[in-house]
Amino acid sequence: MFAARIDRLTSSLVRDILAAASRPGVISFAGGLPASEVLFRASPQVLGQLPDDIWQYGQTEGEPALREQVAIRARALGIDCKAGQVLIVNGSQQGIDLVSKLMVEEGTRVLTESPTYLAALQVFRLMGAHFVTAAQDEEGLLPQSVAEADARLAYLVPTFQNPTGLCYSQARRKALAGAFDAQSMVVFEDDPYRDLSFDGPAPSPIISHLKQARWIYQGSFSKTLAPGLRLGYLIVHPDLIQAMTRLKQAADLHSNRLSQAIVTQLLQDGSLDQHVANILPLYREKRDVMQAALLQHLSDKASWGLPSGGLFFWLTLKNEQDVMQLMQEALTAGLAIMPGSAFDPVPHPSSTIRLNFSHSSFEQIQQGIALLGSLIK
Amino acid sequence: MFAARIDRLTSSLVRDILAAASRPGVISFAGGLPASEVLFRASPQVLGQLPDDIWQYGQTEGEPALREQVAIRARALGIDCKAGQVLIVNGSQQGIDLVSKLMVEEGTRVLTESPTYLAALQVFRLMGAHFVTAAQDEEGLLPQSVAEADARLAYLVPTFQNPTGLCYSQARRKALAGAFDAQSMVVFEDDPYRDLSFDGPAPSPIISHLKQARWIYQGSFSKTLAPGLRLGYLIVHPDLIQAMTRLKQAADLHSNRLSQAIVTQLLQDGSLDQHVANILPLYREKRDVMQAALLQHLSDKASWGLPSGGLFFWLTLKNEQDVMQLMQEALTAGLAIMPGSAFDPVPHPSSTIRLNFSHSSFEQIQQGIALLGSLIK
Repeated sequence: MFAARIDRLTSSLVRDILAAASRPGVISFAGGLPASEVLFRASPQVLGQLPDDIWQYGQTEGEPALREQVAIRARALGIDCKAGQVLIVNGSQQGIDLVSKLMVEEGTRVLTESPTYLAALQVFRLMGAHFVTAAQDEEGLLPQSVAEADARLAYLVPTFQNPTGLCYSQARRKALAGAFDAQSMVVFEDDPYRDLSFDGPAPSPIISHLKQARWIYQGSFSKTLAPGLRLGYLIVHPDLIQAMTRLKQAADLHSNRLSQAIVTQLLQDGSLDQHVANILPLYREKRDVMQAALLQHLSDKASWGLPSGGLFFWLTLKNEQDVMQLMQEALTAGLAIMPGSAFDPVPHPSSTIRLNFSHSSFEQIQQGIALLGSLIK
Repeated sequence: MFAARIDRLTSSLVRDILAAASRPGVISFAGGLPASEVLFRASPQVLGQLPDDIWQYGQTEGEPALREQVAIRARALGIDCKAGQVLIVNGSQQGIDLVSKLMVEEGTRVLTESPTYLAALQVFRLMGAHFVTAAQDEEGLLPQSVAEADARLAYLVPTFQNPTGLCYSQARRKALAGAFDAQSMVVFEDDPYRDLSFDGPAPSPIISHLKQARWIYQGSFSKTLAPGLRLGYLIVHPDLIQAMTRLKQAADLHSNRLSQAIVTQLLQDGSLDQHVANILPLYREKRDVMQAALLQHLSDKASWGLPSGGLFFWLTLKNEQDVMQLMQEALTAGLAIMPGSAFDPVPHPSSTIRLNFSHSSFEQIQQGIALLGSLIK
């Protein structure tokens, strides 16, 4: 009855976990939600200044003033771009959908980290991707593996990655850019966590170092402002902007104009940066509370790195254990965690867990980690 | 470099026309914009009542209260449905994109009217559709042609169609429903113009008469409230809701929550119906002004029907004429029109024009039609 691609729509495991996690009384480290208590909420003043023309159809590419602001910020990160290369999207997920439509068809080789963002895997898989993974170390993907990948597209989350929290070193970014330049691969750098950095500015984007390769860079306002705004942006190499714009038009004509008008205001008057500066201490403190709890309860049972940004801890259990079963036991006990295997482009056995530290309260973090410690062998 | 489907992204003719149409001083009958002067604009009171939780991630399916309101209204149209079958989308265009992903792959036979909504054709074509058209008369598609179509999906706009303005008779709707029931075809009824009806309520949806066939029904708030809200909805047969929801999740996680909160309020307190009642007289008057101008200037040069709803007149020129050239001449003279051929699923020669009557002022309508009359042979 359906198109064949529907058979590739992945199982509802993650949806099931997140549904269970939202039950009252469950402590959830499973999702990737920002801290609700410090989300941006548009003030009556901001809402009172919405332009009168936003209720009519708008431009597919996005509001010109917003595209200009995005380009200004991107240039400050070292990305050589103009506002004409900016495409406003309905959240990062739509950006991935558009890139997938542009680049991926049955059998297209897509280079990804392993593990990587699961919702990107879903979309690439839906369009027929064949995933190629490369060796990596604590600085990121290894440059020598890029040539071997023989892929059309590389999808990378090099800054406070979801799920691992890894942030590539500056040296590795430059080396990788060189490796990509030597290939005809398009580089898609997904960068939603950059501003949630606890130890000063993150290294500049990989694509800012490219000299030959075509690229797509993606940012989001979901983590810095509010997910409910559903607003992100793509900045794309000049060779790709026309096709991307047509794909956006075919997808939903244009993005929501209320959200665009609100975010434009916040960028123009500096409120975004102020908001991020205001929320960072809470994120850092939540990370530190989870780190202290992990040290107390899981030191002998798991290993992990301290994330210097983003929303997640990534644990590797020291003793082999069925993490799916552990997840079920934890749920029964009132704790939701996300098995690391959900993030595998190519399934392989591992005893890993992703823990979100941003959405729970301090008390929930302490209780939940203590409970997790008691459940792990 | 790209996926093969990108070769099927249709040319930018329509974009070019609409871009030219937006130049200052150009009278535009080319687009499909609602009347800007009576668009819904959220009041400070409405914006002041936004729930506090809308800034966080929301549910893929949409806000529960909005889905409930949509289902209530659909049942009043005769559609047997529950809120659980409602999927809130980022405007109708996204609904078409999702249905296309669900149903259409390389070579999938899709039954459509001819002409039909061009942006739907774009999306179906992108996913690989093979268009099958059926014979029709002034009451709509002929039921006997449905069986011959041998299609997986039928896409219909039976109520004040874009571009023709045609509204299927009640009898034809029932006969077609019977024909679809005899096939295993999924029926996708796109119904954005229903509420813009100038002569009382439109006949009930085709899918409300189905007994066997699976179906998808689509509505929009772009024409009744405001396109900038980017909000529409799908109501789908129970067999399709799970896959559709996963496709929506993969497309953009969920729709904008500000817009959803605003529209929920308007549906709950009856403001939507009041707003539609308020704007209908203006739409009717604009239609009547264009009709009078057409009668004055084009009676001997074209034939057309008086649309009883929607946004468009559909003209067939009496003398063969190159409409693309006419369109260029009109643009040079400061008037934008849309060649009917843009709406052909399968290209064929025709001397047809779509004229939008909702977006221009009375004076622009009169001047533009007089100008058009002077340009047509």
